[in-house]
Amino acid sequence: MNSFIIRGDICYSADKNHLITKENSYLICENGVCAGVFDMIPDRYADLPVHDHSGMLVMPGMVDLHIHAPQYAYRGLGMDRELLDWLNTYAFPEESKYGDLVYADNAYTIFANAIRSSATTRLCVFGTLHRTATELLMDKLENIGVVSYVGKVNMDRNSPDTLREASAQTSLADTERFIKETQEKYKNTYPIITPRFIPSCTDELTKGLGMLSKQYHIPVQTHLSENPGEVAWVKELCPWAENYGEAYNRFGLFGKPEKAVMAHCVYSDEKEIARMKENGVFIAHCPASNTNVASGIAPVRKYLEADMNIGLGSDVAGGHSESMFTAMVDALQVSRLYWRLVDQGQKPLNVGEVFYMATKGGGAFFGKVGSFEEGYEFDAVVIDDSLLPHPQELTLQERLERSIYLAGDVKALKAKYCRGIEIMRN
Amino acid sequence: MNSFIIRGDICYSADKNHLITKENSYLICENGVCAGVFDMIPDRYADLPVHDHSGMLVMPGMVDLHIHAPQYAYRGLGMDRELLDWLNTYAFPEESKYGDLVYADNAYTIFANAIRSSATTRLCVFGTLHRTATELLMDKLENIGVVSYVGKVNMDRNSPDTLREASAQTSLADTERFIKETQEKYKNTYPIITPRFIPSCTDELTKGLGMLSKQYHIPVQTHLSENPGEVAWVKELCPWAENYGEAYNRFGLFGKPEKAVMAHCVYSDEKEIARMKENGVFIAHCPASNTNVASGIAPVRKYLEADMNIGLGSDVAGGHSESMFTAMVDALQVSRLYWRLVDQGQKPLNVGEVFYMATKGGGAFFGKVGSFEEGYEFDAVVIDDSLLPHPQELTLQERLERSIYLAGDVKALKAKYCRGIEIMRN
Repeated sequence: MNSFIIRGDICYSADKNHLITKENSYLICENGVCAGVFDMIPDRYADLPVHDHSGMLVMPGMVDLHIHAPQYAYRGLGMDRELLDWLNTYAFPEESKYGDLVYADNAYTIFANAIRSSATTRLCVFGTLHRTATELLMDKLENIGVVSYVGKVNMDRNSPDTLREASAQTSLADTERFIKETQEKYKNTYPIITPRFIPSCTDELTKGLGMLSKQYHIPVQTHLSENPGEVAWVKELCPWAENYGEAYNRFGLFGKPEKAVMAHCVYSDEKEIARMKENGVFIAHCPASNTNVASGIAPVRKYLEADMNIGLGSDVAGGHSESMFTAMVDALQVSRLYWRLVDQGQKPLNVGEVFYMATKGGGAFFGKVGSFEEGYEFDAVVIDDSLLPHPQELTLQERLERSIYLAGDVKALKAKYCRGIEIMRN
Repeated sequence: MNSFIIRGDICYSADKNHLITKENSYLICENGVCAGVFDMIPDRYADLPVHDHSGMLVMPGMVDLHIHAPQYAYRGLGMDRELLDWLNTYAFPEESKYGDLVYADNAYTIFANAIRSSATTRLCVFGTLHRTATELLMDKLENIGVVSYVGKVNMDRNSPDTLREASAQTSLADTERFIKETQEKYKNTYPIITPRFIPSCTDELTKGLGMLSKQYHIPVQTHLSENPGEVAWVKELCPWAENYGEAYNRFGLFGKPEKAVMAHCVYSDEKEIARMKENGVFIAHCPASNTNVASGIAPVRKYLEADMNIGLGSDVAGGHSESMFTAMVDALQVSRLYWRLVDQGQKPLNVGEVFYMATKGGGAFFGKVGSFEEGYEFDAVVIDDSLLPHPQELTLQERLERSIYLAGDVKALKAKYCRGIEIMRN
């Protein structure tokens, strides 16, 4: 059923060092899975329908490894504080509202519409601690056809009364119910264990979440080593942990037994990095957020050179835009400031590397996702870069590069496919 | 003739510390000049036509103190090098093409259309060293109704044969002709003396340009202390100058006798800063460019605290976007990284400060421009922020803040006025 051909100018990553660009080529989708890219349509596919996007860029759907759906409402507001102050002043009061399902319905409709209109096909999403609102969010994401992991957030300490669960036990019971209600409910939407971060979770809660993850085979998302004040606080809260990551790892929330994605990793020390590497933990690099809340710049070059699992996160609303094109540009930009201001031994990122992170790098969290190699799930977006006029000849790679920098400024997204289904057309 | 009233939600800066927001108010334009903002229409203006932009944001037109028109063609390309290498690899070869008037016409049409569609009403523009192409650019800018200073660039050393003038004398003669041909030609478009930067100009050329500036009362634009390698090179080239700024100042190109705007000022030392302050030199802070070509982060807090003349520049194509909304966000963001990575004594910028820089701060280079106070030239833009849906109540200041962060992402610009004339409507 989901078999067709896209004709266009095709761009994808083979790996972080190899960006493939093929002009005027044919990308085959066979039963929702990539069958490869060809100069001519192979005879065995001659009967498939062709979606003709000639002259447009065709690239894998973008993967957002870290985004807070309830924070979408106040993206672009309150960018005047550091992380912990920012959470207390903006994030927690806003998230408290999601106990009200009318508000949640309104806000999550806006969020889902924005994701639908974006180039994102896969995302790891934080909800709030409210189970019902989070399930409502999952309904809406399922409806727009993207594939997502969505977490009911856990928090049982160090947050206001309006945004704190009564106890570790009630938090765990509610999470188990959340898992049972959602694990088999959707085709494209899955639950994920989501401790907010160590400061919000007692050891008892963290331990219980590790057990739920193992029992139900549910992956994990959370925050790690984002801000110096946060890291120092975790040290106080968990004196038994030699680093922040160990506070998760001890309870089975750090890539083993189930996969895990950690947002930020700006201040991870060598031991924490070694453990992430050993456990195959995914890093969600969130450059806009790390800039906006003055956290710093993550040492991404180091992670890439160590061949760690790494992708990009928009981290709305620490980041102010859900666009993964913006996230790619932000990653390029902060890597240049890191080189200039922090360590001139760390070469800035290049376009191929950020494109890899936004597609195949992050996509690996979802399986064979984020590339057009044979056997990959068929996620694709079509960008009409003719909306970006230019007087000179450009190669396909140059067109891709400027589209990354500029396509966020125009309504360039023409079509989006996820798992072999066309889920958006402009 | 140019007398009318705009109704809307009005935002403007009184000074860098005072952002004024007035909901559902009336902004009076009387003969192209602001007559103030009122809660009700005063009787004496009762007969003026009302442009009803109720529910939309009305703010001063944006001022771009530094942009390279010929580089617009390759914005978002080649962001992988430091300044001097970037100039040789990308900027100079592209600018060489503007000897071809067909190419220039095509490229400058694209540029002018982009400026027309932007929120910018005032700009300081670099052309190329080609006089004819630069005059063509001026024609196009005049046609779109914005007010601009446009410079034929001067370069007589350290650049490729294809982009170097034959001698200081020919460069000066061509510049004098350029001044004579354009000084009285347009209503809204003016010539400006534009030595590219010290490495491109012999002392003889710089000296002659200072004389032309004085003789014809023409202001000056150029680059200053952008990159460490550039600063070191200027020291070699002008051993007689105690700092980069003195290499301009000695020849009368540094704010006296005519006003001058210097792009970047990332590495200005205390003496250079003191001279800028003394001479009233304008600083064009170009955060995107300083990031993209890895120059660093300018100490803007210091300039603001010293009450220096300062505005923002997009610096296309060091910066990849002509949007001054983007420039404001970039300025906010890099100030937070400056605080984190360089000097925690320098408080990050806030929204009121970057809005001031993008309007009244930069506007001062053009006279009484960039505010809605009585007597200011009437430049305004109307932003429909209803395109940015939200579930919660927002104050007008919050609406402004999120529009700065997000309005670059949508087609939110509804109307643009310059000198009391409506020059664009969407």
